[in-house]
Amino acid sequence: MNRQTLIAEIKRKRSFLCVGLDTDIDRIPKKFLEYDNPVLEFNKVIIDLTSKYCVAYKPNTAFYEMYGSHGWKILEDTFAYMPDNVLKIADAKRGDIGNTSAQYARAFFDTLRADAVTVAPYMGSDSVNPFLEWKDKWVILLAVTSNSGSSDFQMQPLEHGMPLYQKVVQTAIQWGDPGQMMLVVGATAGDHIKKVRDLAPEHFFLVPGVGAQGGDLTEVARNAMTKNCGLLVNLSRSVIYADNSANFEEAVVSACEAVQLEMEQLLKEHHVL
Amino acid sequence: MNRQTLIAEIKRKRSFLCVGLDTDIDRIPKKFLEYDNPVLEFNKVIIDLTSKYCVAYKPNTAFYEMYGSHGWKILEDTFAYMPDNVLKIADAKRGDIGNTSAQYARAFFDTLRADAVTVAPYMGSDSVNPFLEWKDKWVILLAVTSNSGSSDFQMQPLEHGMPLYQKVVQTAIQWGDPGQMMLVVGATAGDHIKKVRDLAPEHFFLVPGVGAQGGDLTEVARNAMTKNCGLLVNLSRSVIYADNSANFEEAVVSACEAVQLEMEQLLKEHHVL
Repeated sequence: MNRQTLIAEIKRKRSFLCVGLDTDIDRIPKKFLEYDNPVLEFNKVIIDLTSKYCVAYKPNTAFYEMYGSHGWKILEDTFAYMPDNVLKIADAKRGDIGNTSAQYARAFFDTLRADAVTVAPYMGSDSVNPFLEWKDKWVILLAVTSNSGSSDFQMQPLEHGMPLYQKVVQTAIQWGDPGQMMLVVGATAGDHIKKVRDLAPEHFFLVPGVGAQGGDLTEVARNAMTKNCGLLVNLSRSVIYADNSANFEEAVVSACEAVQLEMEQLLKEHHVL
Repeated sequence: MNRQTLIAEIKRKRSFLCVGLDTDIDRIPKKFLEYDNPVLEFNKVIIDLTSKYCVAYKPNTAFYEMYGSHGWKILEDTFAYMPDNVLKIADAKRGDIGNTSAQYARAFFDTLRADAVTVAPYMGSDSVNPFLEWKDKWVILLAVTSNSGSSDFQMQPLEHGMPLYQKVVQTAIQWGDPGQMMLVVGATAGDHIKKVRDLAPEHFFLVPGVGAQGGDLTEVARNAMTKNCGLLVNLSRSVIYADNSANFEEAVVSACEAVQLEMEQLLKEHHVL
């Protein structure tokens, strides 16, 4: 999916919601345990319930790799089940030397048919560039993450006082233009999200950390929404585990409806709609 | 495999060789294409030929994920085929927020039964700590990598002039002691490898970059060998693709024998043996 289509879908659905499919068998409603493949069946139902309200899905590979090759099959079947008009993000946080990153790009873009993959920046340009060779596919590079450990290295000031994450952003946007690169910027990053927006005025941000991790949607929009929206806000636990009773469907739809309405309001306030 | 056993195996085999199983179907001898599962059959033969000469194997997950769930099955079968007395390293370069890294730890330590997994440091402490909760399992953290892009961020000087990679090493060795953490330090890093040894005198280093990438084994030993060896030097392409004719077996064994003899000499010179 290219940038133009993504922006059109955001305007059509009046939403910039990404649903994180971090499916944990211990947290899904018990009724799914009757199926041969509970995680896949749950994902399918979640996709059916939420596709009206979101513009992207983001399975995190860790939650599938814990089941080994069987888990990778669930991941493949989950990607195959997603409708055409959503951005399909593999949250994989890969990155390796050039010839190896090229194999990862094949794994995610060709084999899994993802539109986008999250990539870690520590190994530098040749670990990122192979992913940028695919047309209409996306690298989503870690800039500021939403976890407590983000302060250990990302916030380290460099010689002129600039924190590392800003150097990462400054450097990386030279590698990938706003049609092929997005940046991960955690909602819990506070003023830093505004700083990243100053450095990368056109790039989309994938924003984790709203909901369970405590980030605030209105503040994210105030700090980083652009005239093309420029944001994908991920919600995972607060949507997919909105309720774990047998009648969980209603709670999932309600959670999505509420977020979509809030997002529509923000899109209007910021003159995207 | 714990530290004591690893050191004993290094002394017994007179080798600190790690064989990288980055198996690319386009580069293996043509005769394997007759099998249903060429990559797995090739890996088994390589393991049979090399296990006498090496103390560790390191499949890189990218080369298996490019085949999706089928590739993960090959990865599982490859790990299962490795003999007991080698360190089994999943070169995966993972790292995510705490609850997600915990799932990766399960994927690699429980499901795949790897002894060690490579981890990227960018997301900080809570992305690394979950891997350290397993007894006799290892985190191998990226410090200085062997690729050209390592200069982009790893070499960035922080406020007091210390490059980022040194801050990573200083910080990370507080998280994991020499019985549970190793560091990736590229052979092409020159004097930096000595600097990392000063900062982490007891930790094992996993050293890529000797061979195809141009690093020198004698120099690595001079800069970083300890009284317990403290090194695992990875060779991949120069061993597994030593020859791609039908009689490749002989070339693989010769390549390993030559490296083992060189390593034995270095172990003697540095008084490990």
